[in-house]
Amino acid sequence: MSFEYKQPDHKLTLIPGPIEFSNEVLASMATPSQAHTSPEFIATFQSVLQSLRKLFKSTDPKTQGYVLSGSGTLGWDVAASNLLNPGEKVLVLSTGFFSDSFADCLRVYDANVDVLTADIGDVVPLAKIEEQLKKEKYDAITITHVDTSTSVVSNVEAISQIVKKVSPETLVIVDGVCSVGVEDLEFDKWGVDFVLTASQKAIGVPAGLSILYISERALAKALNKEKDTTFFASLKRWTPIMKAYESGNGAYFATPAVQTITALKTSLDEILSQPVDERFKKHAQVSDNFKKTVEQDLGLKILPVNHDVAAHGLTAVYFPENINGPDLLKKLSEKGFVVAGGIHKQLVGKYFRVGHMGYSVYAGHVDKLTKALKESLDELK
Amino acid sequence: MSFEYKQPDHKLTLIPGPIEFSNEVLASMATPSQAHTSPEFIATFQSVLQSLRKLFKSTDPKTQGYVLSGSGTLGWDVAASNLLNPGEKVLVLSTGFFSDSFADCLRVYDANVDVLTADIGDVVPLAKIEEQLKKEKYDAITITHVDTSTSVVSNVEAISQIVKKVSPETLVIVDGVCSVGVEDLEFDKWGVDFVLTASQKAIGVPAGLSILYISERALAKALNKEKDTTFFASLKRWTPIMKAYESGNGAYFATPAVQTITALKTSLDEILSQPVDERFKKHAQVSDNFKKTVEQDLGLKILPVNHDVAAHGLTAVYFPENINGPDLLKKLSEKGFVVAGGIHKQLVGKYFRVGHMGYSVYAGHVDKLTKALKESLDELK
Repeated sequence: MSFEYKQPDHKLTLIPGPIEFSNEVLASMATPSQAHTSPEFIATFQSVLQSLRKLFKSTDPKTQGYVLSGSGTLGWDVAASNLLNPGEKVLVLSTGFFSDSFADCLRVYDANVDVLTADIGDVVPLAKIEEQLKKEKYDAITITHVDTSTSVVSNVEAISQIVKKVSPETLVIVDGVCSVGVEDLEFDKWGVDFVLTASQKAIGVPAGLSILYISERALAKALNKEKDTTFFASLKRWTPIMKAYESGNGAYFATPAVQTITALKTSLDEILSQPVDERFKKHAQVSDNFKKTVEQDLGLKILPVNHDVAAHGLTAVYFPENINGPDLLKKLSEKGFVVAGGIHKQLVGKYFRVGHMGYSVYAGHVDKLTKALKESLDELK
Repeated sequence: MSFEYKQPDHKLTLIPGPIEFSNEVLASMATPSQAHTSPEFIATFQSVLQSLRKLFKSTDPKTQGYVLSGSGTLGWDVAASNLLNPGEKVLVLSTGFFSDSFADCLRVYDANVDVLTADIGDVVPLAKIEEQLKKEKYDAITITHVDTSTSVVSNVEAISQIVKKVSPETLVIVDGVCSVGVEDLEFDKWGVDFVLTASQKAIGVPAGLSILYISERALAKALNKEKDTTFFASLKRWTPIMKAYESGNGAYFATPAVQTITALKTSLDEILSQPVDERFKKHAQVSDNFKKTVEQDLGLKILPVNHDVAAHGLTAVYFPENINGPDLLKKLSEKGFVVAGGIHKQLVGKYFRVGHMGYSVYAGHVDKLTKALKESLDELK
């Protein structure tokens, strides 16, 4: 970080991403220009790629991280175009809007997609997954770790165990956009093959980066793919670049987002300054506490009725029946808090979503929001 | 901009992108979090999309600008996957490394590519282009406005005139990565169909944005394409989003890079604070002056011998015969200037490149670099 910076007072963005950023992360965004192959930036990018290994608890040197300019969505294209050949079969576990969109992306690349859809606000039962994997042979399975539309967290470890037991060749692809940095994800141990995430959620950096992590066998498939179906999202093209930067050398395929990657280094340094399990525990505590307060003190209903499947980075709350949703969001905005509307197709207008990830969890923003929410409800009664 | 910021002293990055940024642009990168659908960010993005029309001198309301998270390279995928169907014919005018890479991208999407290659440091002769267009029917022609590897600027207006005369149905696709913001580009008047560019060159914003501009007929082709071949780079998916933001409404397909787009607003406001032709003239003056000094005062040879085809945003200079290239770059670095090595496959190691775009042109960086270059050469004699 090149200077002391204290961000001005502003409305707190407590949506499930983009989240609030630390002063140090924002200061890093204002880093003066550096050449993408300068020693300074190479050291930054090297640190980022090494830190990703720690974040994913991966010690296998044959796994590989990637940071591309793009959004979380780009990660779907990377998975679809690099890990699958046209016609290959994919089992999509759908826990909401984002799972379904991932399925749309897979179909664009001619994957043969089957979808197992969970009940709204629930996960796909493990028994159903096992049954389906026994019935059909799949080249890959996709799991939306946390579907931001429903606030449901899937049990990646348990699902992956079933895959290993029933259909070990099936690649395990995890959409970790709203989970990485808040929910535990043990890449090697759980046998995950590919995780895609983005910068603007629990990783705590402004939007603009697609962050990926791949296993040895998934990478081998990508590198040996006969027919390329993407240029910008091609792992064949990006792998030597990432390996170069991680080993301390510059390389060029497309210009990296120097400032945002510098901010990513700052945020990953902050995240890894304590054991990551401490971070996950802290998020779970704040989340559990917020959910309890919302239900017990404020008398509101939250979306996953079964708290075992409720994500820890956000809370989806039904609007109370006697209150007009937009009025509540407006009240909160007047009090300086931005929360998100609901986006699940069947529930639009019926609920709102509060993000509690990263900086906000440590800076006490959630307590302030809780107070504002209580006041707003009282005023609207 | 939310605060006063003066960037610290640092090595000046005078490469053909990323360029140096203004204090105001860097301050905008540190904008506190805003929701991507907040009124604040919608106003920012609306302004950006409206400003792009002015930058491209377009008054046709049926043209459309796009700003995606990505790099310049992503623009090639957008062109290849949205404007062409597999098997369609493309004539690539190659003036260097980047033209050839664009051709590689087009082939990934199964375009049928013919390449007309210019002599190194020259453009493809207009007569040769006309002859080829008469010989074969092309669905599109690609022009690298400025190929950063050779510092050659193509005459987009003249080429487009030939296309209109000989083969008016052919889409005119311009790679403006190293031209937009420094070379004139009259989108409507010249009959251009698609321009792709990036944030980190003459547009003056940190890397991370792919910036696109499309004509009515090219957009119609993209929207009516039968088979989608990309998800993240799909204009079918992005067009309603950009139209919404430009008309002052939020919309969601993938999370936009809020901070970098805010910096883009700041930079476009700076660029449009004077008539753009004044900006182009200023860049031409600084470029002509630098080239003259390098040749006449320093006795060095520059790459395009014919100055009529020399780009104005950078200068490619051969290392003098009696001096070791890396030594010269090291000297310059010690004096606080970062310039770029050469990347044309046939000339690697034989030349270096100096970027003179945007903030550096106005802040007197080029004069300082000239002095350091003279001193370095003297010391290495």
